[in-house]
This record gives sequence, structure tokens and C-alpha cells, in this order.
Amino acid sequence: MRSAPLSSTESSWRAEAMDLHILDHRLRVTSISKTGLENYTHPLIKLIFLRNRTRCKFFSLTETPENYTVVLDEEGFKELQPSEHLQVEGSTWLPLNVISNGNASSSSQAVGVTKIAKSVIAPLAEQHVSVFMLSTYQTDFILVRETDLSVVIHTLQEEFNIYREVKGESVPVQGQNAQNGLRKNGREASHATVHPVLIPENQFCVMSLDPDTLPAIATTLIDVLFYSNNPKEDTSQAQDLECIKFFSFSLIDGYISLVMDTEAQRQFPADLLFTSSSGELWRMVRIGGQPLGFDECGIVAQISQPLADSDISAYYISTFSFDHALVPEEDIVSVTEMLKDQRKEAAR
Amino acid sequence: MRSAPLSSTESSWRAEAMDLHILDHRLRVTSISKTGLENYTHPLIKLIFLRNRTRCKFFSLTETPENYTVVLDEEGFKELQPSEHLQVEGSTWLPLNVISNGNASSSSQAVGVTKIAKSVIAPLAEQHVSVFMLSTYQTDFILVRETDLSVVIHTLQEEFNIYREVKGESVPVQGQNAQNGLRKNGREASHATVHPVLIPENQFCVMSLDPDTLPAIATTLIDVLFYSNNPKEDTSQAQDLECIKFFSFSLIDGYISLVMDTEAQRQFPADLLFTSSSGELWRMVRIGGQPLGFDECGIVAQISQPLADSDISAYYISTFSFDHALVPEEDIVSVTEMLKDQRKEAAR
Repeated sequence: MRSAPLSSTESSWRAEAMDLHILDHRLRVTSISKTGLENYTHPLIKLIFLRNRTRCKFFSLTETPENYTVVLDEEGFKELQPSEHLQVEGSTWLPLNVISNGNASSSSQAVGVTKIAKSVIAPLAEQHVSVFMLSTYQTDFILVRETDLSVVIHTLQEEFNIYREVKGESVPVQGQNAQNGLRKNGREASHATVHPVLIPENQFCVMSLDPDTLPAIATTLIDVLFYSNNPKEDTSQAQDLECIKFFSFSLIDGYISLVMDTEAQRQFPADLLFTSSSGELWRMVRIGGQPLGFDECGIVAQISQPLADSDISAYYISTFSFDHALVPEEDIVSVTEMLKDQRKEAAR
Repeated sequence: MRSAPLSSTESSWRAEAMDLHILDHRLRVTSISKTGLENYTHPLIKLIFLRNRTRCKFFSLTETPENYTVVLDEEGFKELQPSEHLQVEGSTWLPLNVISNGNASSSSQAVGVTKIAKSVIAPLAEQHVSVFMLSTYQTDFILVRETDLSVVIHTLQEEFNIYREVKGESVPVQGQNAQNGLRKNGREASHATVHPVLIPENQFCVMSLDPDTLPAIATTLIDVLFYSNNPKEDTSQAQDLECIKFFSFSLIDGYISLVMDTEAQRQFPADLLFTSSSGELWRMVRIGGQPLGFDECGIVAQISQPLADSDISAYYISTFSFDHALVPEEDIVSVTEMLKDQRKEAAR
């Protein structure tokens, strides 16, 4: 499904050598208000389409009903002028990436966040490390706060070979000494909140595009991203309450990933966007009734663990307000049941 | 050269039936400051690329070293939010268009403003009617103030069949009665100022594009229009003082016209933009040392009359600050001489 070599599956990860890479991007997580997008059209179009004019290497833009979440490196962040329409999370975030260099021996085909639920997501949640997930067509980025890095390394170093990418070189991270190892994240453990979920009716596709053909879809992409929020359409969408506005574009280290529903997909030329050979459709589970914030830990773990237990693939996209898991359409009934059971147990 | 049927030439116009059409567009002439363009990227991209999202039918954007001149109809004008970066000329302007319906019998091949210098430009100048010219690949639009329309009709009705286009229909304009005929433009005749001219070194092309292929050049056009003014390039251009920044895009009644210098042209794919079969290059004569304003009459006449006398083709593009004539490259020496003589005479 991913263009990268298929990584080993969760059920066999302990038996293999797995690498965790700390990528060479220092990221900011921001949100632009719906009404403020116009003011940011100029820098955003530059970051999306004019690669010769920017040194930004990590850019992600996700539209949700609440706002536009923009995750980008410091080069990109410089392009966004402060205004009342721009909210910026205060931390610098670093993206982690799991790469398998062994042979997958399991029969499991599950991919995405499911694959790293037990090896990465659960241990970080136990150590009270907040994560911000960004699944793409190519891989899954696990964003952690730069200030949590020593805890992250200590937590994951037993199970992973950890490398830090520095200017294109992968430098092994030495095992930390006991003193560092003891410096755990100081946040208090809190009783895990089970958040309400929303399961909209849209079917989603996770797609990619040859960067050289990006100009060919430029006007369509611009239309969908910057001009699809006119009042008339909002009215028609209000009548169709079961669907949710969700569109995600990312351009990371030269790779493009797009997540959109089938209605948006119809606006694009069919021959340029590609998806996995199975052409799978995905359903969304939106996590959170009130905006989740950035400090609560274990939100991703709460949904990815049971998915891993059932060997169900999932993409996972965090945004400024809510988290979004995408599961295969054929699994949505069992996932819905699973989530119901989870809530029943929490209510006991 | 034009895609419209070749109109009759100036030297034979009196012998033929010529039609003057008052087009069904009510236009505003505006300018956006160089530093303010970012704030107008959102509406301008909509007007240029997203024809399904706007009812604007007349749009022209011209970048000069001073500013961006935007001429557009009322539907388009609604998209531009007032700000300190937007200057708006106070009048409503109507575009006139000369269409020949006879057979050209002259051997002259001159086109553009030259063709209408004696039939339209000179008589309007004599009646103290200000004109704002907009030559495109397809035709030459003569913009006059709506308040001058009765004077315009009275002035031109003897030589033209005048039609007013109303919702796609061409309605003949009845000859005005004596009372209206006497209502000449009240402006005072002033001694004709001979304005300084600038003749930059750039070579220009006047081109068109199938509107269906506009998406294919979208990122290049966006780059050239909205992102080519970064400080670095300004520095390099300052070293090359003999060239001038000039780029014009218009989308009028579905027809696209582009005027750019050969340096800008190289950024576009060669197979999509087309020009006349002769592939002629043009040199610019910029008219005006100080911004010309909109009230002085006879500026176009001053340069188009001698060009007509010499049967030299010319495009003519007025902008918010200055006027710009484009003449065939091979004629620039004689045009320069002609302009020198004109200035010598004025100095006597």
C-alpha cells in the first residue's frame, strides 16, 4: 500500500531489527481560521506549488470543519505572518519515522498506525509523552515535542535502533546513561479520558501524485483548498450533516500525499492521482467532542491498540482541534462495535 | 495577426462601413500597490483561473514597475476588498470596439491602435474625451467614461454604425438629436503637453492561449505574476536598468491575451502560448515622466497619429500611472526619430 518497502507487521516486530529515525525537521503546528485563509493564500500557494521559491521541506495542510491545520518546518513557518487568524502551538515538534530493515514473517497485512501501536504509541503514552500523528500515503510521522526527546529516546531505545538524521546523514543515537534515563516526562498520569467519536458517512481515499505532475492539478487543488468554502456550499453541506469536510495535502521531502473524500476526488483528473493497487476506500473516526489540545497523552494509543489487537489497518491524522483515524471501509462496523464496547467499559 | 477577422486598414476606413460597438461591460480602473499584491492574491487567482466561481467577464492585470493595474467589470470589482493598497479611479468606463464589416482594399498591413488613430482616437481627443486604451492579442479596447458616452456617440456617429451590446444583442444606437449633439464634453482645451518617453531594451511578445490550456500554465503564471518581486530579483534588475518590468494578462469574454518580454516568455512551455505566424517582437515606448492621471486628453492621439502617418502597427496599453505603446522591433529606430522630432517641435 505504501510506496516505501512494506514494513514488518506489529505482531512480529519484536523479532526483527527495527529502526527509528528522528528526522531533520523542526516543526511548528499551527491553525488558520476559516475566515482567515484568504490572507494566507499567498504564502500557502508558494509552499505548495513553488518549490524553487522556498526551502521548506515539510509541509502539511489539513482542512477540517473547524479550521485549517498547517504543520511545517521553520523555513515554511517564516512565510506565515502573525495575525489574529493564525494560532501557533508553542512547541517545536520533531517527526519520528519507523523503518523496518528485517523480513516480515507475519501473515498480517495491517499497515499505518496499527503497525506501530504497540512498539511506539503505547510505550510513549505510558511515559506521558504527547504525540501528534500525521499519516501520509508514504509513511506515518510521529511528531513529539523537542523537549520530550530524551524521554522518547530512553523509552524506545531498548526496542529500536535509533538514528538522528543530520543533514542527510543518519547518525546512531547512543544509549543514554542512567541519569538521562531517569529523566522521565514529569507530567502527571491522569485517568484516561474516553473521548466521544464521530463517524461521518464520507468515503475517503489516500492518494499520491508524481510531484512533476503537481502543476497539472494546480487549479483544481487551488479551487478545492482555497475556494470551496463559499456560503452556498456551506448551506448545502449543512443539509448533508452526515458528511464532514476533510481534505489533507502534504508535501514532505518531495513526496506528495492527499487524503480526500470521494466527492472531492471526482474533481481531479483520474489519471494523475494514484492510490494503492487495491483502491481501498476508508471511513473516518473523528476523536474528540471538545478540541483535544496538545497535552493529553494516550489518545492515539486508545484507538490504535484495539485496532492492532484486531489487525485492522489505520491511517491517523491529528489536527489542531481533533484527531482522525481512517480505517478500511469493510472494517467500519467492527470498529464501531469496538468503540461502543470501549465506551461501555469506561462508563462502568 | 489578430484571431478576429483582419479589420480594414486606416487608409481605407472612410471608404468602408465600419461598426463601433459599445460593449456590455461596466468597468473600473484600479491599481494595487506592489507591497499590497499579497493581500489580493486570493481574489485575483479566482478571477484568472476559476471561471466557474465568478461572473466576471472582463479582467485585465498589468504589472509595471510602479504597481499592478487591474481593469475589471463590476462583478470582478466586487471581489476586491478596499484597503490602503487599492486605488480606484472614480469613474465607470465603457469599452468600445471597432469592427470592420467591409473589404480591406488598402495594401497597408498596420494593425492595432494605428488602425483606429484617425477614425476614433483623433476625433475623441479633439472633443476632449479621455480614453484609456487596452490592446490585446485579439483586438483593441477603447475605454471611455460612461459620462462621456453621449459626446462619444455624437463625435463618432457620422463615421460609424454604432451598436450598443445589451445582453448579447447588438442594438443600433439612434443618431442623437441636435440638443444632445450640442452637449459636448465641457472640459477646457489645454495646450497639448508633449510627455517624456522611455524606450526600454526589452523585447516583447503579444500572445494568446487556448483558455482550456490555462490550467497547464497556472503555476508558471502564478509564479510570474505573484512571486517574481522578491528583493533579490529587484537587485539584479536594478543592475539592468535598461529593461523594464512589464507583464500583462487579460481574460475578456473568454479570450486570453498575454504581453510579456522574452525573458518572462522563456519560463512558459513553448508549445502552449501562440503568437502571430510572423512571431514578431515588439519594443516599448513608455509615455509619461510623472503619472499621467486620467483627465488629460490626446495622449494616445499624440503617438498614434504619427504612427498612422507612417503606417506602423502598434499595440497600446494604458495603465494607472503611464501609457505604453508597443511597436514592431524593426520600426523602433524610426519611431525614436519621430518622437525626437515631435519633442523638438514642441520645444520651439
